[in-house]
Amino acid sequence: MGGTKVAAALVDASGCIHGRVQRPTDTSSPDLTLQSIAAAIEDAIATAGCPRESVRAAGLGIPGKVDPERGIGILSVNLGWRDVPVVERLQAMTGLPCAVENDVKAATLGEFRYGAGRGLQNMIYLNVGTGIAAGIIIAGQLYRGSAGMAGEIGHAVIDRQGPRCKCGARGCSEAVAAGPAIGARARAAAEAGPATILRQAFATRGDRLGAEAVFAAAAEGDQVAASILAEVGAHLAYLVEWLIMSFDPELVVLGGGVFGSGADNVLLQAVRCELEAQSAQSYVVREVFRPERVQATSLGRDTGILGAAALVA
Amino acid sequence: MGGTKVAAALVDASGCIHGRVQRPTDTSSPDLTLQSIAAAIEDAIATAGCPRESVRAAGLGIPGKVDPERGIGILSVNLGWRDVPVVERLQAMTGLPCAVENDVKAATLGEFRYGAGRGLQNMIYLNVGTGIAAGIIIAGQLYRGSAGMAGEIGHAVIDRQGPRCKCGARGCSEAVAAGPAIGARARAAAEAGPATILRQAFATRGDRLGAEAVFAAAAEGDQVAASILAEVGAHLAYLVEWLIMSFDPELVVLGGGVFGSGADNVLLQAVRCELEAQSAQSYVVREVFRPERVQATSLGRDTGILGAAALVA
Repeated sequence: MGGTKVAAALVDASGCIHGRVQRPTDTSSPDLTLQSIAAAIEDAIATAGCPRESVRAAGLGIPGKVDPERGIGILSVNLGWRDVPVVERLQAMTGLPCAVENDVKAATLGEFRYGAGRGLQNMIYLNVGTGIAAGIIIAGQLYRGSAGMAGEIGHAVIDRQGPRCKCGARGCSEAVAAGPAIGARARAAAEAGPATILRQAFATRGDRLGAEAVFAAAAEGDQVAASILAEVGAHLAYLVEWLIMSFDPELVVLGGGVFGSGADNVLLQAVRCELEAQSAQSYVVREVFRPERVQATSLGRDTGILGAAALVA
Repeated sequence: MGGTKVAAALVDASGCIHGRVQRPTDTSSPDLTLQSIAAAIEDAIATAGCPRESVRAAGLGIPGKVDPERGIGILSVNLGWRDVPVVERLQAMTGLPCAVENDVKAATLGEFRYGAGRGLQNMIYLNVGTGIAAGIIIAGQLYRGSAGMAGEIGHAVIDRQGPRCKCGARGCSEAVAAGPAIGARARAAAEAGPATILRQAFATRGDRLGAEAVFAAAAEGDQVAASILAEVGAHLAYLVEWLIMSFDPELVVLGGGVFGSGADNVLLQAVRCELEAQSAQSYVVREVFRPERVQATSLGRDTGILGAAALVA
């Protein structure tokens, strides 16, 4: 479940995906949003051609703060939700046992159950998209912290001289390195910089120029776009290093919108490049950072679906 | 067990300390060091006036990397140890069941069992002394990470423009804010600055001017010393904030040499002051940082002893 669309599919016992559907969501009220979700579930069942009675349960990942025990969406700014009894409503609508979880925490469980984290005890899933957050698996369990806020590092300061964040602080990881920050860097560079591909894109799209355009321009060889991604990757490397030193996980998986689906992602290369540069400088980083310890998600665009499935698997 | 001395005491079932002794340690060989430890244990028993047969076990905290399962001191630069079978040797010397653990991890267990962390599920003990490291309690258990390195944040970069660390990187937390870094700041300030108390101390002690002198000068009203501690406290506040956002603990306890034993510690005040300044700026920090969530150790100079006791309690 995202702010604008909901994706649904059937996931079988072996983690294979069937009947994927996607539809826009009506966020004009929690009730209408839940109706879109229930409709997407029915769509997916029909598309998969699966007998209704063989469907066992429904899992749902949503952006924002969730109480998974009570099945409540506590606060979701994107959806306009506050204390919505998601599980109760969705069970009534679908007749299925339902579970709900924060989307990044669900994706973490997906990576742990179906992705690069299979068989591990301790791992971290670092999501960099519209926001930044980490999901944490400790001793084979999702670690939530004392108030469900563990891994909420979107407002951890990673560049004290960095841009002002909407939270009021300066240099929060989201303000420095999330998708919108990449877009903002690109617009500033395009306005000031030479006549590159990025500048042409800016002339066309203006304020709507986002992170995708930076990736596209970099792929076409635009040096300004490449240097933006190198800079953002270097900042993210500090986050990764922090997570490794703090949690000492077996693996850090990088996912979310800006990491796309592939290990050839240019931002992932920038993160690795900075970690290697720091390894060359510091014997401690050399000991702590091993390339195989930092990977891109292997689930690609399926992370959300498999994460939701992991909630009820 | 420190690099220069060993402290020993008897701790009874209610956590009261009896017969504390302290003696210099012979670190010329692991065997001689272990003999000093065994002698300190016998001293403490004699000083406490406790019948030998009522002593149940001995716990030992040492600086460096430890394998507590196998009872081995894997690497301790301060003691000159590598793969020393501590438990086996100490059991043979004392006839007592023994346990060994890294000193910060032991202190964390001490805070958890006897100190501010009693009754909590998740807490962090941040030790700032000669080095910097955090001990982590998750779900009532010490969390070690996949290679026993969780919480080893002494070389996490907190000031990228900061001083060069001995590890090779720039701005590691230890290089910025540990005891020796406070001393180095003081010597640099005294050399360059006005004729203050700190400068007089520098004239007398030269390169041996350390963190204690900065605390002493600040207590006497020296403004240069006070501003050094304010700056170091501000850096440490970022560490505390990071730990809170990453682990979402119920409590962060600050301990180790530079925090001394009291809640009136000037460095603790500086940490709080910066956290309050950041709260004023950022609504996220406002939500995350509550004053009662960050405390100084209540165990003072007993942290080490009670930590060692907690290993066998």
